[in-house]
Amino acid sequence: MATSSSLTPPPVPIELHLRNREKLLNSIRHHLSQSSRPLHGFVLLQGGEEQNRYDTDHVDVFRQESYFAYLFGVREPGFYGAIDIATGKSILFSPRLPAEYAVWLGEIKPLSYFKERYMVSVAYYTDEITKVLQDEWQASGKPLLFLLHGLNTDSDKFSKPAEFQEIDNFDTDLTTLHPILTECRVTKSDLEIAVIQFANDISSEAHVEVMRKVRAGMYEYQLESIFVHHTYMYGGCRHCSYTCICATGGNSAVLHYGHAAAPNDRTLEDGDLALLDMGAEYNFYGSDITCSYPVNGKFTSDQSLIYNAVLDAHNAVISALKPGVSWVDMHKLAEKVILDSLKREGVLDGNVGDMMVEQLGAVFMPHGLGHLLGIDTHDPGGYLKGPERIKEPGLKSLRTTRQVQEGMVITVEPGCYFIDALLVPAMGSPNTTKFFNHEAVGRFKGFGGVRIESDVLITANSCKNMTKVPREIGEIEAVMAGAPWPLDKAS
Amino acid sequence: MATSSSLTPPPVPIELHLRNREKLLNSIRHHLSQSSRPLHGFVLLQGGEEQNRYDTDHVDVFRQESYFAYLFGVREPGFYGAIDIATGKSILFSPRLPAEYAVWLGEIKPLSYFKERYMVSVAYYTDEITKVLQDEWQASGKPLLFLLHGLNTDSDKFSKPAEFQEIDNFDTDLTTLHPILTECRVTKSDLEIAVIQFANDISSEAHVEVMRKVRAGMYEYQLESIFVHHTYMYGGCRHCSYTCICATGGNSAVLHYGHAAAPNDRTLEDGDLALLDMGAEYNFYGSDITCSYPVNGKFTSDQSLIYNAVLDAHNAVISALKPGVSWVDMHKLAEKVILDSLKREGVLDGNVGDMMVEQLGAVFMPHGLGHLLGIDTHDPGGYLKGPERIKEPGLKSLRTTRQVQEGMVITVEPGCYFIDALLVPAMGSPNTTKFFNHEAVGRFKGFGGVRIESDVLITANSCKNMTKVPREIGEIEAVMAGAPWPLDKAS
Repeated sequence: MATSSSLTPPPVPIELHLRNREKLLNSIRHHLSQSSRPLHGFVLLQGGEEQNRYDTDHVDVFRQESYFAYLFGVREPGFYGAIDIATGKSILFSPRLPAEYAVWLGEIKPLSYFKERYMVSVAYYTDEITKVLQDEWQASGKPLLFLLHGLNTDSDKFSKPAEFQEIDNFDTDLTTLHPILTECRVTKSDLEIAVIQFANDISSEAHVEVMRKVRAGMYEYQLESIFVHHTYMYGGCRHCSYTCICATGGNSAVLHYGHAAAPNDRTLEDGDLALLDMGAEYNFYGSDITCSYPVNGKFTSDQSLIYNAVLDAHNAVISALKPGVSWVDMHKLAEKVILDSLKREGVLDGNVGDMMVEQLGAVFMPHGLGHLLGIDTHDPGGYLKGPERIKEPGLKSLRTTRQVQEGMVITVEPGCYFIDALLVPAMGSPNTTKFFNHEAVGRFKGFGGVRIESDVLITANSCKNMTKVPREIGEIEAVMAGAPWPLDKAS
Repeated sequence: MATSSSLTPPPVPIELHLRNREKLLNSIRHHLSQSSRPLHGFVLLQGGEEQNRYDTDHVDVFRQESYFAYLFGVREPGFYGAIDIATGKSILFSPRLPAEYAVWLGEIKPLSYFKERYMVSVAYYTDEITKVLQDEWQASGKPLLFLLHGLNTDSDKFSKPAEFQEIDNFDTDLTTLHPILTECRVTKSDLEIAVIQFANDISSEAHVEVMRKVRAGMYEYQLESIFVHHTYMYGGCRHCSYTCICATGGNSAVLHYGHAAAPNDRTLEDGDLALLDMGAEYNFYGSDITCSYPVNGKFTSDQSLIYNAVLDAHNAVISALKPGVSWVDMHKLAEKVILDSLKREGVLDGNVGDMMVEQLGAVFMPHGLGHLLGIDTHDPGGYLKGPERIKEPGLKSLRTTRQVQEGMVITVEPGCYFIDALLVPAMGSPNTTKFFNHEAVGRFKGFGGVRIESDVLITANSCKNMTKVPREIGEIEAVMAGAPWPLDKAS
């Protein structure tokens, strides 16, 4: 079967970023009004810079800083961007490039190019920031800058406020912007959703492509290569949302496998389960999809058992998701469905409510149920206001404890893993040993794990699964055996 | 024709890095002896760390710092490595990983694993550096550390000396190590050459694959995707040596096209010339190959004219290369061959010697003829001792002005481009206007350019071209029309 695609990269209207700016402008004006503060000042963000690798002249392909990408959609490095809160005017500042740039790196674009391309009110050079903002400033005193400073709760790192020469000529506010801008990113516009949908479409298709080509004897990284190629070749996706996790056999119990120290380099064996967590990024917006299946295309009974336990959890959560639902409750729902299945199938024994009290769910699913998705794979805003991080196993890994709301895109990614580092202590603990059918658990030594992950949009009354891959065991086995996807339901 | 390969990723003996350490040890001992300094102290290098993207938890795939990779071959982040000059003992220091690592990132390897895998004398944890080195130190006074500090002449950046707590308990030498270690990297061992040869083999094959698949109507980035996929899928190359330059039409005159602001996003048109500069990296060592050809598979007479001018230069240099030859002379030879051709074909007029005096070569080839190649694409050591950078056009871009010597791997990459930013001033200048046949040059408006780049190993009496792609116009046209590669010479 020849590799091909039914998709083509769609044009992305730059209005997407213009509307993002309008959303921020409305939010920050509203906030200032509520706080009885004057409606003026400039939001000022510094875009990303290219980074050399150590002391060399090697430069990886630049990817814009995410907040800057959100507001301005600029693909080039070295920019600044401002929004005048008083007038709503948007201003881009481009680096002034040396004449030599034209020979080595390409045409030096005039400011008018950037003004048009990025639909801003006006464009200047970065060495004009001070003068331009002082000229724009209509009030008395030093002009006020709202700079981006705040904690990313996934990395525990702080965003870096814009820096430039002569910033001392300005007053700066480091606390107002970050929570407001982050909250803007939490719910997605229709234009953003369309881009995330395309990232999902091309990534779903690439997962199906991998499903069709996987064979025992291949290296794990070959699955990564097929995926990345498909999304770039047919989807124009130059970046992945994150490093591909191509975990087979026992590796599928390593949640973030695939990094440089565990680089997808195992040879696939007949009978292996594969856990493939891969997503492409399109126009800054990501996708995040996991498929789990046997590399030989036929589920064993134990593989079916664990797979269906996770699929039931995945489907139960998606059925329950709608605005107002607590993400913590969804996590617990997934845990409960998995424990129910493990009990029904004789792997566990006893009362599932008691297991929940003893947090047995986190032994099999030590990660959180899912996370907000957008310009970052772990999109910010999970702990913006109100609910704090819970300290219990499993729940402590949740990247948000919020109630979901319309317009959020969130991953639903339950999993069930057999991880010695967690299982051995739990099976030996006086509080939990009684729940295990030790002989049955023994069957799963070296089994690895299953994760099923879809990207879900919260709608007015329910939710929509944006991911379009085979999920039922029958669907997977049919596609791996050569059936078209989507399946022809008539046949 | 199905995508496939005749190659498989070869195992790389870790002795490669052990021998690199021995080479350094011999060099530094020799240097200390010559300077009547005691033969003791520790070479101490700090390996690279994973970097988060801005404030997020996004981490690109880690690639080891090049000097550290040279000496230790360690693929994991967070290591330090030492060599005891007195005893020759090599010591790796591994980060001490938290227990949670096992759940999220994989098995926590014991020190014995790293000792064996990387063939060092002994392995400890990074929090033991001070104690271990103090215990190893046999002389009086503070132990002496030779740290890496020196200028990279391609990036104009300095390498970062190792840092760790309690470094104040040591004496440090910041000047001795860098030139000695860099000079070690300049000539390659047989084991290094074998790895560079594989990087060349798989990249050559991938270039041929692209040649066969290129069609008008495709996007430039699809050529990048085919190349990257082929080298990863069949060669296990997770990294490219540098960002792929897939320049077609007028873009082929932009020397470093392909970066984020010029991201290989043009649609190929019938009649375009493509300039594809792409190379894969294998086990840290790179390749760097450029092929130029028409996307429709048939050279026009003007395309042939420029292509053959560059190919003649490429071949003339390779015929002349042998130990002792000056790289500056090779650059001038390439310039002269190209100018000769342009004169013969009626594009230029007058005496080529006079053109050389007026530096007309740099109008058509503003970059240097080539550069050392190894763990870095622009491998260091180009200006280590003796010859300094020349200030004339063209020559000022040379990444080395050394005489070549046996064991160097260097790129030979002449080019001929029609770059308005250079051509318009030269054609208008009173000193050089007379050389141009203005009507003939007019034919090349928007033509772009041609570059032909091979990786060449300097041998005892001549050199060996490590790159195996179709170069003659007849070969290229045959392969693009479906002939096998290498061509079956009998048929």
